[in-house]
Amino acid sequence: MVEECQTPDFKNTGLRGMVIASTRISDVQSEASKLIYRGYLIEDLAEEATFEEVAHLLLNEKLPSEAELKDFNARLVKERAVPEELLAALRLFPKDALPMDVLQSSVAFLAAFDPDIEDTSKEASVRMGIRLIAKFATVVAAWDRIRKGDMVVPPSDELGHAANFLYMLSGKPPEDQVGRFMDICLTLHAEHSFNASTFGARKVSSTQAHLYAAVAAAVGSLSGPLHGGANTRVMKMLKEIGDKERIDGYIKEQLDAGGKIMGLGHAVYKNGDPRARILAPMSKKLGELTGESKWYEMSAELEEKTKAAFKEKKGIEIFPNVDFYSATVYNAMGIPMDLFTPVFAVSRISGWVAHVVEEKFAEAAPKPMLYRPKSEYVGDYCGPEECAWEPIDKR
Amino acid sequence: MVEECQTPDFKNTGLRGMVIASTRISDVQSEASKLIYRGYLIEDLAEEATFEEVAHLLLNEKLPSEAELKDFNARLVKERAVPEELLAALRLFPKDALPMDVLQSSVAFLAAFDPDIEDTSKEASVRMGIRLIAKFATVVAAWDRIRKGDMVVPPSDELGHAANFLYMLSGKPPEDQVGRFMDICLTLHAEHSFNASTFGARKVSSTQAHLYAAVAAAVGSLSGPLHGGANTRVMKMLKEIGDKERIDGYIKEQLDAGGKIMGLGHAVYKNGDPRARILAPMSKKLGELTGESKWYEMSAELEEKTKAAFKEKKGIEIFPNVDFYSATVYNAMGIPMDLFTPVFAVSRISGWVAHVVEEKFAEAAPKPMLYRPKSEYVGDYCGPEECAWEPIDKR
Repeated sequence: MVEECQTPDFKNTGLRGMVIASTRISDVQSEASKLIYRGYLIEDLAEEATFEEVAHLLLNEKLPSEAELKDFNARLVKERAVPEELLAALRLFPKDALPMDVLQSSVAFLAAFDPDIEDTSKEASVRMGIRLIAKFATVVAAWDRIRKGDMVVPPSDELGHAANFLYMLSGKPPEDQVGRFMDICLTLHAEHSFNASTFGARKVSSTQAHLYAAVAAAVGSLSGPLHGGANTRVMKMLKEIGDKERIDGYIKEQLDAGGKIMGLGHAVYKNGDPRARILAPMSKKLGELTGESKWYEMSAELEEKTKAAFKEKKGIEIFPNVDFYSATVYNAMGIPMDLFTPVFAVSRISGWVAHVVEEKFAEAAPKPMLYRPKSEYVGDYCGPEECAWEPIDKR
Repeated sequence: MVEECQTPDFKNTGLRGMVIASTRISDVQSEASKLIYRGYLIEDLAEEATFEEVAHLLLNEKLPSEAELKDFNARLVKERAVPEELLAALRLFPKDALPMDVLQSSVAFLAAFDPDIEDTSKEASVRMGIRLIAKFATVVAAWDRIRKGDMVVPPSDELGHAANFLYMLSGKPPEDQVGRFMDICLTLHAEHSFNASTFGARKVSSTQAHLYAAVAAAVGSLSGPLHGGANTRVMKMLKEIGDKERIDGYIKEQLDAGGKIMGLGHAVYKNGDPRARILAPMSKKLGELTGESKWYEMSAELEEKTKAAFKEKKGIEIFPNVDFYSATVYNAMGIPMDLFTPVFAVSRISGWVAHVVEEKFAEAAPKPMLYRPKSEYVGDYCGPEECAWEPIDKR
């Protein structure tokens, strides 16, 4: 696998297949199609838990008792508001700024307001993490309001994390069913082992930089089209296809061009992404609730027909991944396409915080160790020797 | 080396010793104590080139001709100014904000003002890179002025990059010798292969995120005490020792406690850091120029005595690294200690840009490949099986 992607002259391993660290946070089981957060199956968490319980599990290594959850919820609620200075800074951005740039800038901005920023203890990192989990939703919603020229909606103390996020976006509390669906979405996206953004956060943390610096790096990484942008591209594709009648033609075009269908297939899960199985019925239900089932129905048909085409033409089984149905779920919730990745971040911040804390403080881990790989120099500008200096008038 | 730092249960390789990619940008030769930027020895570049020539070399793979340098300088000068909105945002930070947080936030903020931000071509990345190289100096200087309550000094079109940076910091153009020394410092810190911040920038770029997102991650990484903070800690140590007479006692204390002396020894250069050999005489000369030779003299004596002590007690040869004498150089230039790492960034941005461009566009490289390592799950919360779900009232 790695060999295939190398040339003898210029190596780029992508770290593929290299087991670089241990983690107690999550397990992604390729063959069994299982996703496990700290021992618990994603199916159970999505069915039974709130995002707050999941965040508690990720941060504290256990599901909370009733008293612990009450306390944890209260801490999150208390930390939802952002400093007035941040809102003023958001108003200075051009209205067409990319939301992930705004989020990345805001994370580093918020660092300057955190009283724990120079405290290097584990407890301080957890406190900072709770603040960021709470505030991510507020920043993303505030930016969407500001760019549209609407008033910023202050967080509600009465709503859960997911419902409050939708409330701050739209100004209206969501219907219970919709709020619960967002809650499940946040659970599903909360954690996925050493993916690119999480590894980015861990890498920055390994320099002993503070949590905000690491999280800002993760946001930057998630902004990359190869990482966080896939569900946006799924929605764009659906809109581009536009109508069920064009599905056959679209699949044929893509396959003929050697391309793939966005959201179908996963680099890790060989037998289907367990999150997609939870999202598909949510997408269907939201279509019914909103009276616009078109996008769900197109997705379902696109999935079925692409599966059949891959089986027939390539002899392989493919499955939808987490992005395939989250696209239509978010779309049905009225979330603009360019916020899909920030919504991902609103959830994944919980996993990032858990990983930063593990990277810096895992008791079982060896001493702090900077991630410092080696590279191989192939700059043969003057052959095997160094270049002789040339004065500027001789160049 | 790696084995030593692992336990059978919890692995943390730090990627040590793993050659993960090829690069044509720089070579760090451990045994030979050589640092090479695109074929050229650091000694030649420090002696003969300006930082602008070095930045051109790093970005364009060649030293510029006279005409090319004139053009490159003009582009940098033109890009020095930052948007008024950024200065307004800087004024919203608390005055005690950590300068690296301010810089990280500013990088992502500037992304929103770059007309090339959605252009995925190599040429656009280079244009964005030139903007960031130019603007880093302006942001760092502006923040220092703003936090002190001083007027921001707009960039001068008449000065070179290094001298203009010092001018924007102090409001006065530096003496020629001092400006030239800063120029050399910027050259010395411009590039150092796959160090933690550069690898961070490459990692984010591998998701095909834009240059600003990658650079913001690098800034976060550089902010970590294990990476960019070392020269600040050297200066703090010198001030803590305070007087030459306390040097013997300090070395004894540190060695008895099993500690090390900041700035002495390097993880890579076994026979001395070539940059330190260039910095030491600059530190001496600046001491003479400013009339305060104390800090240089203390450094020199500390180096000599620590060397002797290590040789005697541990039988090993140690050498000063780049941080050891850059501390006293920056101090003599009147730069506040907490700006040493941002000054490092003002230089290293040139290397980061070169690496991002190589990561994304190297012609010899295989197709774009996300850095996605594997981890090993050791979360034995419920033994080898998954945990059974427990309702909240049963926990």
